[in-house]
Amino acid sequence: MTTSYDVLGIGNAIVDVLAHAEDEFLAANALSKGTMTLIDAASAEVLYEKMEPAVECSGGSAANSIAGLASLGGTGAFIGKVKQDQLGTIFSHDIRALGIHFDTAPSVDGPSTARCLVFITPDAQRTLQTYLGACVQLGPKDIDSDTVAAAKLTYLEGYLWDRPAAQQAFVKAAEIAHGAGRLVSLSLSDPFCVERHRDAFRDLVKGHVDVLFANEEEIKSLYRANTFDEALQAVRVDCDIAALTRSEKGAVVVSPDELHVLDAEPIDKVVDTTGAGDAYAAGFLYGLTQGMDLPRAGRIGAIAAAEVISHFGARPETSLQGLVAEKF
Amino acid sequence: MTTSYDVLGIGNAIVDVLAHAEDEFLAANALSKGTMTLIDAASAEVLYEKMEPAVECSGGSAANSIAGLASLGGTGAFIGKVKQDQLGTIFSHDIRALGIHFDTAPSVDGPSTARCLVFITPDAQRTLQTYLGACVQLGPKDIDSDTVAAAKLTYLEGYLWDRPAAQQAFVKAAEIAHGAGRLVSLSLSDPFCVERHRDAFRDLVKGHVDVLFANEEEIKSLYRANTFDEALQAVRVDCDIAALTRSEKGAVVVSPDELHVLDAEPIDKVVDTTGAGDAYAAGFLYGLTQGMDLPRAGRIGAIAAAEVISHFGARPETSLQGLVAEKF
Repeated sequence: MTTSYDVLGIGNAIVDVLAHAEDEFLAANALSKGTMTLIDAASAEVLYEKMEPAVECSGGSAANSIAGLASLGGTGAFIGKVKQDQLGTIFSHDIRALGIHFDTAPSVDGPSTARCLVFITPDAQRTLQTYLGACVQLGPKDIDSDTVAAAKLTYLEGYLWDRPAAQQAFVKAAEIAHGAGRLVSLSLSDPFCVERHRDAFRDLVKGHVDVLFANEEEIKSLYRANTFDEALQAVRVDCDIAALTRSEKGAVVVSPDELHVLDAEPIDKVVDTTGAGDAYAAGFLYGLTQGMDLPRAGRIGAIAAAEVISHFGARPETSLQGLVAEKF
Repeated sequence: MTTSYDVLGIGNAIVDVLAHAEDEFLAANALSKGTMTLIDAASAEVLYEKMEPAVECSGGSAANSIAGLASLGGTGAFIGKVKQDQLGTIFSHDIRALGIHFDTAPSVDGPSTARCLVFITPDAQRTLQTYLGACVQLGPKDIDSDTVAAAKLTYLEGYLWDRPAAQQAFVKAAEIAHGAGRLVSLSLSDPFCVERHRDAFRDLVKGHVDVLFANEEEIKSLYRANTFDEALQAVRVDCDIAALTRSEKGAVVVSPDELHVLDAEPIDKVVDTTGAGDAYAAGFLYGLTQGMDLPRAGRIGAIAAAEVISHFGARPETSLQGLVAEKF
């Protein structure tokens, strides 16, 4: 194998459409603040019509993480499905411009490239309404064995579990990775996503996942735990490494032999929390695949997350590599 | 006539694609810093491939001005041509979401919606490479007489003069406006644009234009003047009102009976000068159509320009109406 990647991300290939919104707008349109909801093409159109003027940029949870990894100086690959249309061209351009390997065949027919309407309220919270579009066509045939085997770690977003064909792609990728002696990592993505797939996610975490990412709400939902500590004790026996993020409270990173309670990176002003978890995973996986210890990997995750929430949009605007170099 | 608008803008309907670039990149690709160049579809594709990851947002010079006018609380309308594609949907959404009247029929066949690749160098200068796409289909039939007659002022961007059919649309709109006792305003847009159409622009300014916008380079080019003052004296006899912008040196506003030398609005840091002239025109025209005197209209122009150059992107991010209220 000639090429090798630090991390391969597999996820939904989405263009974000970001605009400001007031709390009253969320209420009037029955949008649940801080969560991701799947919507169909018709709803996406209706909601877009009501949306303020917007800015478009490439998004997608795992894709954001690989973008962050590239910004840290890691080598990344991505698998995800766009359509051959203008938004698909934008997504493909942006990810390749970062030096990320991306050659999933775009769909020619069927739904258009996915978009995620992001409503950002004055409290910097983001409310996501996702039209999956072409992403629903991602299936096992899109999982290129060579790419998976060439990556030290394959990172999957929980959102993939929303579609049966993507579930099969997910499991296929995990099996190839483990067969090649590589690691598999999963992000639980969103509390509602955990709600929808709790049993499947528990099986995955036990059977397939080496490195788990979840925020407090997600991990509590996964184990139906009443307290964070209860969820923490439960996840310790299920997978090798879990990185549990708690916003301004920092993160807790556990492995069978270690437990670290790490501080959040201080920040002047939170502008937009979109992509905070994705950036944390980027930093943590960068550290891990560079052979760093868990606290250091966690610190890089925190630095990456702090950068991303200090501006509008889910991908880093400054070189994370430079930022990390300043801090150590 | 039931509806009435403060300003109708007629211009190219463009989606901006913004990314950072180094000076070396401009040199290597023979891009002339600070100017706008027209490129064909093939060049646009090649250049886009070399471009850093980008952000997309609605642009277009006159469209930006009408967006600024709306942000100031003015009522606006826009005429411009998109195609029925994803970028066209974005453009139409963004301008309508501002409450601007926009119903130019999109083209169904032919080139895709126009885009402008914007390269922003570390000195905050912007270098524009425009693929006009569907804009070339704008013609006299798109000029709706009722809309023109219903607007206190029709504002035309000089860029329109690059295509014959748009030139006809331009003249038709000016004639309808004057026939209805309304005002006509023109922005010279860009020094290269003046270079291309000097004689035609001189005739327009003499024959059709009541309110002219130009920056220092443009007005000097129009009259082949060696000094700013020389150009200033020349323009005074050609049109009723000229607002001549000079970046940090402020602006000079002249009419037959008045000459005002106005300061620029102080600003902490210039981030991206894209849209500075468009925003100035927005503020000035807002003031003018509200019946304000020239210095006050100029001050509003300066405030609007200062807001737009303090961030990435050509349209205001905060309510200009609120900003102006704070300052007076």
